[in-house]
Amino acid sequence: MKMIHIILHLFVLLLSYTITSQSHTTSSVNDFCVANLSFPNTPLGYPCKSPLHVTVNDFVFSEFVAGNTKNPFNVGLTTASVNNLPGLNGLGISASRIDIGINGSVPMHFHPDATELFIIVQGRITAGFITPKKVYVKTLIPGDVIVFPKGLVHFQVNSGTGKAIAFAALTSSNPSMDVIDEVLFGNNLSTFMIEKTTLLDPSQIEELKAQFGL
Amino acid sequence: MKMIHIILHLFVLLLSYTITSQSHTTSSVNDFCVANLSFPNTPLGYPCKSPLHVTVNDFVFSEFVAGNTKNPFNVGLTTASVNNLPGLNGLGISASRIDIGINGSVPMHFHPDATELFIIVQGRITAGFITPKKVYVKTLIPGDVIVFPKGLVHFQVNSGTGKAIAFAALTSSNPSMDVIDEVLFGNNLSTFMIEKTTLLDPSQIEELKAQFGL
Amino acid sequence: MKMIHIILHLFVLLLSYTITSQSHTTSSVNDFCVANLSFPNTPLGYPCKSPLHVTVNDFVFSEFVAGNTKNPFNVGLTTASVNNLPGLNGLGISASRIDIGINGSVPMHFHPDATELFIIVQGRITAGFITPKKVYVKTLIPGDVIVFPKGLVHFQVNSGTGKAIAFAALTSSNPSMDVIDEVLFGNNLSTFMIEKTTLLDPSQIEELKAQFGL
Amino acid sequence: MKMIHIILHLFVLLLSYTITSQSHTTSSVNDFCVANLSFPNTPLGYPCKSPLHVTVNDFVFSEFVAGNTKNPFNVGLTTASVNNLPGLNGLGISASRIDIGINGSVPMHFHPDATELFIIVQGRITAGFITPKKVYVKTLIPGDVIVFPKGLVHFQVNSGTGKAIAFAALTSSNPSMDVIDEVLFGNNLSTFMIEKTTLLDPSQIEELKAQFGL
Amino acid sequence: MKMIHIILHLFVLLLSYTITSQSHTTSSVNDFCVANLSFPNTPLGYPCKSPLHVTVNDFVFSEFVAGNTKNPFNVGLTTASVNNLPGLNGLGISASRIDIGINGSVPMHFHPDATELFIIVQGRITAGFITPKKVYVKTLIPGDVIVFPKGLVHFQVNSGTGKAIAFAALTSSNPSMDVIDEVLFGNNLSTFMIEKTTLLDPSQIEELKAQFGL
Amino acid sequence: MKMIHIILHLFVLLLSYTITSQSHTTSSVNDFCVANLSFPNTPLGYPCKSPLHVTVNDFVFSEFVAGNTKNPFNVGLTTASVNNLPGLNGLGISASRIDIGINGSVPMHFHPDATELFIIVQGRITAGFITPKKVYVKTLIPGDVIVFPKGLVHFQVNSGTGKAIAFAALTSSNPSMDVIDEVLFGNNLSTFMIEKTTLLDPSQIEELKAQFGL
Repeated sequence: MKMIHIILHLFVLLLSYTITSQSHTTSSVNDFCVANLSFPNTPLGYPCKSPLHVTVNDFVFSEFVAGNTKNPFNVGLTTASVNNLPGLNGLGISASRIDIGINGSVPMHFHPDATELFIIVQGRITAGFITPKKVYVKTLIPGDVIVFPKGLVHFQVNSGTGKAIAFAALTSSNPSMDVIDEVLFGNNLSTFMIEKTTLLDPSQIEELKAQFGL
Repeated sequence: MKMIHIILHLFVLLLSYTITSQSHTTSSVNDFCVANLSFPNTPLGYPCKSPLHVTVNDFVFSEFVAGNTKNPFNVGLTTASVNNLPGLNGLGISASRIDIGINGSVPMHFHPDATELFIIVQGRITAGFITPKKVYVKTLIPGDVIVFPKGLVHFQVNSGTGKAIAFAALTSSNPSMDVIDEVLFGNNLSTFMIEKTTLLDPSQIEELKAQFGL
Repeated sequence: MKMIHIILHLFVLLLSYTITSQSHTTSSVNDFCVANLSFPNTPLGYPCKSPLHVTVNDFVFSEFVAGNTKNPFNVGLTTASVNNLPGLNGLGISASRIDIGINGSVPMHFHPDATELFIIVQGRITAGFITPKKVYVKTLIPGDVIVFPKGLVHFQVNSGTGKAIAFAALTSSNPSMDVIDEVLFGNNLSTFMIEKTTLLDPSQIEELKAQFGL
Repeated sequence: MKMIHIILHLFVLLLSYTITSQSHTTSSVNDFCVANLSFPNTPLGYPCKSPLHVTVNDFVFSEFVAGNTKNPFNVGLTTASVNNLPGLNGLGISASRIDIGINGSVPMHFHPDATELFIIVQGRITAGFITPKKVYVKTLIPGDVIVFPKGLVHFQVNSGTGKAIAFAALTSSNPSMDVIDEVLFGNNLSTFMIEKTTLLDPSQIEELKAQFGL
Repeated sequence: MKMIHIILHLFVLLLSYTITSQSHTTSSVNDFCVANLSFPNTPLGYPCKSPLHVTVNDFVFSEFVAGNTKNPFNVGLTTASVNNLPGLNGLGISASRIDIGINGSVPMHFHPDATELFIIVQGRITAGFITPKKVYVKTLIPGDVIVFPKGLVHFQVNSGTGKAIAFAALTSSNPSMDVIDEVLFGNNLSTFMIEKTTLLDPSQIEELKAQFGL
Repeated sequence: MKMIHIILHLFVLLLSYTITSQSHTTSSVNDFCVANLSFPNTPLGYPCKSPLHVTVNDFVFSEFVAGNTKNPFNVGLTTASVNNLPGLNGLGISASRIDIGINGSVPMHFHPDATELFIIVQGRITAGFITPKKVYVKTLIPGDVIVFPKGLVHFQVNSGTGKAIAFAALTSSNPSMDVIDEVLFGNNLSTFMIEKTTLLDPSQIEELKAQFGL
């Protein structure tokens, strides 16, 4: 047994040696690529942190708790993405916790390049997504999971009598949330242009722009 | 020269032989995969037509002309996608011709999983796209090309004094066009749900639903 | 207003017409591709169900509840994958609910082609993943999220005093779970071959094979 | 209404706050990744410019006009790629304008990693592509669109009586154009090697090498 | 130990049960997708054979031996692709054995959508690839490996005094080999069109066409 | 002929000019992206070396010879990956040479994100891979090729009477090799945790940990 011990130990050393001599580099990162957020992003993710500085904490996010719901939609959102969980870099996944107060909702929105898998944890939520031809809606309770396919507009309304909680996973390490209201009314696009491309009444447009302080 | 001729001819025959004997199949399609539209689609495209039945016409679409503009937006759209140009199958690209009449526009919309490259051919078009943080708008003339990144809401307004024409290429063989108006008002989603998730006035919602005959 | 109503209605009809006349097919499915599980799979997912037969129930799974924990690891697993949630087809995501009884654990395993994002919901779980060079371990509580990068061996042990619950999202619509014990001892690979390629003692191998009834 | 105004405004602020506190970074770029051309490229595109410095001009190219046709093929090419339209970075698309004078042609060539969708705008063009088994050729006029599948050798000849114009879209943000003549004769590969691997006569090879000043 | 045995056995049964009851299908193929070559191909590979009919022989090809070299280039090619090794389906890799006789060569060619990694096993081979700007050539001996990046034209010439052997791996399960000679002269494209798009002399074109029996 | 010569020469110059004036950059690298190993990696590969400094040697590795077999498994491994063959960067392929001495073996292992195509060159090797449901094993001789699908555990045992040699290609430019023994026993994971997640006897665990000097 002693002999095998020594040889196996040697084996490990030899393997290390081979790898070192062949590569002329210590920065080979093939198991994962933890984001170095201080470098500029690339189309497929951030450059990798040196493996020497990576710890288990790069793979853990510890504030996945209820977000603040003091807003007109009475909804709180907390997201674990590459920005606060750098181990997600290049892996194409992130997660959100959604808390919807009584009478609250997640406003009509879409994620430009991500599918969403939505798990109901507490309460009762009426959720749906919309294609050019049809709307798909269902009232969900704990034990239900719904998928919102990539890029489609969807919404979630608390249709129960108490607070509702859900978890969502998205197929992007850095997802964007494009709220229809924010897209239409939350920027300096002229009322004329909005009217022309949506047929909404100018008074309605100005009223909602005002909500955004515009 | 004669001898080389004979051998080269043989070479071709031999190559064919080898491929045939190895594959036990004649359906190998590695150069292209023309859609067989009578089969069910798959997530990445239609099954391939047998190469024996493929002709150059599978790669050509001959009705890429002005679409009908008799509609409220005064816009005509013609698209060459896998549905009428089956040679595009699996190749991730399609093209549209856009004709915008005087005072017309392409309504606010997005493509759930495609980037659009938009080439102005005639007239004057004010176009833009919107992110959660900012709107990017510019007035364009022939010689200009603009890109609308994947999944972002965008619009085009004829801001000139005559008809405007543009060509667009999209990074999908079978792109979808999700018009905001159609998503919000063109289906049987209840006015209550729309109000709750957009903060639009019920009267405005009902008015636009009426436009869709709902 | 009447006139616009009529024209907008026409617009919708015209759009439909164009699409129909161009495609010679009604099976165009660009918004989603719900799996038709009765057809053979392809490398990227199942063929699509006809959109005419798709309902909201194709996007919802309603048995995302605690799995049976009566087994040696005292763990229950319930998975929402393309097999029971056909709307996931081609979208590259699935979800699991993990219930670990007192003293229980999820055995050492890996997913050949999926990253896992693991959300702790109840209890206390010590989890980790292993690369050829290092092990990354952390004890987690509700509010914590951990990522196990694609293909790496990982494990989860209930290190609390009560039952533990977690949700996981995986970057595959049809993920596989390769348990190290099952790979080594759960099939008819000869004890000689296992010994030769793992250096485990034959008695240990036979003992564990017996657990699998072999 | 005032109250809602204030709260919605707050909502926006809160959202911003959450994102800032979670990420410890302002460089999150999930809507687009405009190329910073002063950094080294990566296999999937250039690093992203800071969103703070991005303007609408990063998404617009304004010299998409006829190229110079004073060359033996009597052809002018102008390309909008990531190099002059940095907003294309990572989006997998680019566009070209092709002007072919009388008797001119686009020489036999291929794009190593891009499909081409070719739209005839003016004149008459005979175009085709070649697989190991067959050539696919067609004479095209305005209103026609043809696709040249990824990597296949193709050509375009002005077969009309006047100038011809076309637009092309390619499935790469930075496409390469490998002209057969340039590959065979436009570099310092020895005549012996070319003869050996093409069976062309040495005199023919030297004659064409001379055209490239070699 | 007995008790654990029984429970572990049960565990396996329970897992099986869960999977069966959830999926309503036995055709779940997440570990691999062996090609069913009797079905039409799709853009990403063939439909999968039922796992029940898969055996180890679907993953093994046993005729990876020297091909026939009786042809003008004195080269033999044998390829293991999805057509004769159906376990490669969807996995993006294939392999070739190349035998080059004395004075022989692999003619100038390219693979439209595959990178080639070329391992010299015996003899001496001068190999190279060509970009629009430069040719990269090197003489190689056993112990050398060279990469021909995706889509680039390359060639291999036996520059030694005996037979040469090499193995190659390609990043496609079903690669195509486009030989420049075959593309230019091995089909019914008119001499006029070839001259116009290559500037080759008509006599040279006709001479090589004759080699292909045209 | 003189005139054409001059014009073709001009043509080349004009093309160069156009590219330069449009791009404001000389670092356009669309033919290949040779790794600059001194820069941090990204999820899809290293940043590219400037094309001006690239030579043919960036695409060649010249030490693809037998590795040292003085270790308990009696196996030698030599790998050509992006680390010693920087031209492989971003191309998704690498190669290994495997030498297995008499009675030797490649220990049970897997590659987290790569398929392996394994070519037997000399000797006799019994190889196999394992899925949760079944083991696939076969004894192979020169002329045989076997595929180990992405992420599955596999092994190779010299079952002949002499030395065995094989070449392997992997679908990753920078593959990782996760040896089961090393994963379970080659790090500081506590014996308690290993026992709990594998049911192995503590004495067996400690014995193998000792082999790694732990």
